[in-house]
Amino acid sequence: MREQTSEWTEDTVGLVPTMGALHAGHRSLVERARAGNTKVVVSIFVNPLQFGAGEDLARYPRPIEEDLEMLRELRVDAVYMPRVSDMYPEGATTRVVVGAVAEPLEGASRPGHFEGVATVVTKLFWAVRPDRAYFGQKDAQQVAVVKRLAADLDTGIEIVVCPTVREPDGLAVSSRNVYLSPEERRQAASLSRALRAATSAYAGGERDPAVLEALIRNVIEGEPLARIDYVKAVDPGNFTSPGSLATVAVRFGGTRLIDNHDLAQPWPG
Amino acid sequence: MREQTSEWTEDTVGLVPTMGALHAGHRSLVERARAGNTKVVVSIFVNPLQFGAGEDLARYPRPIEEDLEMLRELRVDAVYMPRVSDMYPEGATTRVVVGAVAEPLEGASRPGHFEGVATVVTKLFWAVRPDRAYFGQKDAQQVAVVKRLAADLDTGIEIVVCPTVREPDGLAVSSRNVYLSPEERRQAASLSRALRAATSAYAGGERDPAVLEALIRNVIEGEPLARIDYVKAVDPGNFTSPGSLATVAVRFGGTRLIDNHDLAQPWPG
Repeated sequence: MREQTSEWTEDTVGLVPTMGALHAGHRSLVERARAGNTKVVVSIFVNPLQFGAGEDLARYPRPIEEDLEMLRELRVDAVYMPRVSDMYPEGATTRVVVGAVAEPLEGASRPGHFEGVATVVTKLFWAVRPDRAYFGQKDAQQVAVVKRLAADLDTGIEIVVCPTVREPDGLAVSSRNVYLSPEERRQAASLSRALRAATSAYAGGERDPAVLEALIRNVIEGEPLARIDYVKAVDPGNFTSPGSLATVAVRFGGTRLIDNHDLAQPWPG
Repeated sequence: MREQTSEWTEDTVGLVPTMGALHAGHRSLVERARAGNTKVVVSIFVNPLQFGAGEDLARYPRPIEEDLEMLRELRVDAVYMPRVSDMYPEGATTRVVVGAVAEPLEGASRPGHFEGVATVVTKLFWAVRPDRAYFGQKDAQQVAVVKRLAADLDTGIEIVVCPTVREPDGLAVSSRNVYLSPEERRQAASLSRALRAATSAYAGGERDPAVLEALIRNVIEGEPLARIDYVKAVDPGNFTSPGSLATVAVRFGGTRLIDNHDLAQPWPG
């Protein structure tokens, strides 16, 4: 990968890091990268380091032929697909730890998750040395973690954040949506419905995070299969102090879904 | 710095990271970098993150004019001298943690030291993006830590290790030697004398690390001002299991000196 990109001295390089199982969200990231750079690299790597014990590493979908077909169609210039044994050989112990912004919410619910994300992203950044890297707003805290490390480590890489892509009923597209049963899938639309309702309340003048959180909880708890992990309205700068970024994590059976919306922004569409 | 090196697309770039107070050891690193690359960058940054509480950050020597004079004479292509506030602005929380090889010896005696080293080296690597980086064998465990992170993070940067430069009486050159009183300076030669004696014992067939360590201790403890922090003969691969790399850390008054030698190698000169 490094040899390839080191030949691209006259180019700008956009990197789209993925775990494969590509969907419309990834497509929008690649299209954005395509529009902003002369070369586009997509990495596909299901990163074991960002999965906790008991999470879905083993069953995570890996439809590699379909993924490559989509990337061919999108005319990407290179696909980087390292093996786990190449990324984490025996004795590789270095980790990138981002600190405060990685600690609450997803960081608290998934110990080690953001250490895994930060480490693999730093490795991908070195392997590709892109000018820009593209991430989806759906993983809002991941975006904050990646921005933090890209700045703190002086990478010089611009982090471009793309809007969440949603299904017609509002569900944020995710590789994990395939796990949902038809009934779970129907009830999962409650996450975006709740965020949309809170956006309306905010637009109507409601600013109390506790009230906004309760409103979101009420909508989601209206679905009998939903088990809320957290609902928090936080400052998008630190993910700790109260603010307008409403973030939710909800389980449906064995599937954990996340979504978020900055309530100060209009609901899209 | 990034703008400068990004223009050097046809060059190979060698980086010599330093904390300034340049001496003959640094000179040898720069000469080696000069011989192996078409561009040479020297960084000067007294990195607060690698000093513990109660260590010598405030009094660390900063003879910047003399340093720049030496680097002019050595015809380096760029000197990178970031400010502390640029390297660690408010809110910069990301750290690089190297793991096992950073934990014993210097890592145990100086909590946080190698986290500070690994973090600043990763930042310097991103800012300069060199082909090769040069470090002195005098800081043997630092070399192991830097090699580990350079490989683990897929930097593609070759770590070149240069031999320890010594004074006529054997004392390893160090920016901290200026702290020594004349009597401490005289007694400090016991570190290299002890390592040299252990090298002779090893050449004579002695392989027991405990015996070699005792021999080293005995020589150093012959000096009344010496206070041993540690003496350990370790495997240079992990700095934990016993092996032929003899490492010592000794205090003379408020000054802490380190030295090392692979006893399986002849004493130089």
